[in-house]
Amino acid sequence: MNAARDACRVNGEPGTVAGIDDRGLRYGDGVFETLAIVGHQPQLWTRHLDRLETGCRRLGLPVPSRGRWQADLAALALPRFGTLRLTVTRGEGGRGYAPPTAPQTTTITQCGAVPERPDDWWQTGVAVRFCETRLAVQPALAGIKHLNRLEQVLARGEWSDPGTAEGVMEAMDGRIIEATSSNLIIDQGDHLCAPATDDCGVDGVMQGWLLDRAAASGASVKRTAVRRADLWQARGVMLVNSLVGLWPVRTLAGHPLPRSPWADRLQDELVRAGTALLPAVVRS
Amino acid sequence: MNAARDACRVNGEPGTVAGIDDRGLRYGDGVFETLAIVGHQPQLWTRHLDRLETGCRRLGLPVPSRGRWQADLAALALPRFGTLRLTVTRGEGGRGYAPPTAPQTTTITQCGAVPERPDDWWQTGVAVRFCETRLAVQPALAGIKHLNRLEQVLARGEWSDPGTAEGVMEAMDGRIIEATSSNLIIDQGDHLCAPATDDCGVDGVMQGWLLDRAAASGASVKRTAVRRADLWQARGVMLVNSLVGLWPVRTLAGHPLPRSPWADRLQDELVRAGTALLPAVVRS
Repeated sequence: MNAARDACRVNGEPGTVAGIDDRGLRYGDGVFETLAIVGHQPQLWTRHLDRLETGCRRLGLPVPSRGRWQADLAALALPRFGTLRLTVTRGEGGRGYAPPTAPQTTTITQCGAVPERPDDWWQTGVAVRFCETRLAVQPALAGIKHLNRLEQVLARGEWSDPGTAEGVMEAMDGRIIEATSSNLIIDQGDHLCAPATDDCGVDGVMQGWLLDRAAASGASVKRTAVRRADLWQARGVMLVNSLVGLWPVRTLAGHPLPRSPWADRLQDELVRAGTALLPAVVRS
Repeated sequence: MNAARDACRVNGEPGTVAGIDDRGLRYGDGVFETLAIVGHQPQLWTRHLDRLETGCRRLGLPVPSRGRWQADLAALALPRFGTLRLTVTRGEGGRGYAPPTAPQTTTITQCGAVPERPDDWWQTGVAVRFCETRLAVQPALAGIKHLNRLEQVLARGEWSDPGTAEGVMEAMDGRIIEATSSNLIIDQGDHLCAPATDDCGVDGVMQGWLLDRAAASGASVKRTAVRRADLWQARGVMLVNSLVGLWPVRTLAGHPLPRSPWADRLQDELVRAGTALLPAVVRS
């Protein structure tokens, strides 16, 4: 097992394993969050817990107490910089797919190292492709970060070139939704736009935070249906998530994109607040 | 952990746990099969392994050797009657969703007890409802039995009345696809029909075996798009899977359905061949 025992808690105890009857493993029956740790603190904590709890409620899972996570964090002694994954599954039990009437959830808390990426990706921006794997339209699962992530695994498996940072994913009907492990913010000149996630995709925690920051400094923000043409006509496209913060998109499918003035402004906000693992934060 | 150590093998050894970094738990990144054990033998073995291996290939997973499963079965000493679950995950490793270039799969082999169901369900038939949860259209995952089963969990969670045996699931576009843990065979009078699974649903192993048996005794068999109207106009609807064999549908959404003459013929085939856990097989 790769998981280091002193960096993981399972159901509030040190541990690196789960039962093979756990419904997380059997059916992907659960939700998770991935957070940045900066200055020994998990970042955007309340927003991540809010999404996790929304996911639990949508799936009919009991919501773990916030005290459970706090106790795990206290026991783990968080590093100065790193990542944190929280997972909740429906635990064991039930007959086949039928969820048990009183599920005993499994909670997993894991620390990990800062992912290594070229500084370039924050500075000059990233090369991004379109994925062939499309996202299925499924309102029952849209918005939440559940454990059924085969679409993302297949999409991320489409390339191995280390120079390509991300792949943009379209819904089955051609709308642009997100990238495999990040969300989009599109600078349309007169407003910032995020693809709607009513029936597809994950509501991005970092995306929400950045859009709130932008709105606070006067930007107009919209959630709409986005098509490829919207990306080509944009004043700039940005990829955002809770670990890396924000990468400007330098090229999309080989074609250069302009750099939005919002990229620098929002990166500055991230560095000032220490909200994600940007090089300027990690090396401070 | 519920799993009994003498009834489970993980990676060819006795075991009841998997690492929390296993991609099966992290992303539902894998496939599985559920088989009936009759007379100490797994039933429809080759068909189940064929589907499992097709699933591995579709997901880019290394195909475990058939010898691995055979060695597990030999070590487990199968009961006279029971169930068997085989699971393959992409194991640990990879950076986020990116699959590792040389994955070390996790294989899990588990024996379980015969599920208890009223004899009635085979004899007079079952009460079935329509599920509100719909199946997303996703050709990349259609047909195979992967570990992303939240749609089935949500659908099966829609009712707790023990008198309702199953729920029929429609695709997002309204086509009838399958039930939560069984497939449909629809008797249209002049032919037997199975819903197409090109872009949605699981290719049923038992469904395939029964349709082959029916074709061998002269039935015309078609795979087509099926709508609700096709069920109401049918000469009978049957639910089939590898554990229970075949249940005739007695009522659908409260409305009685006729009993297809194929229900008895195919149940007779199942009992004669000892292919599933029908009461007449288990009590023989």
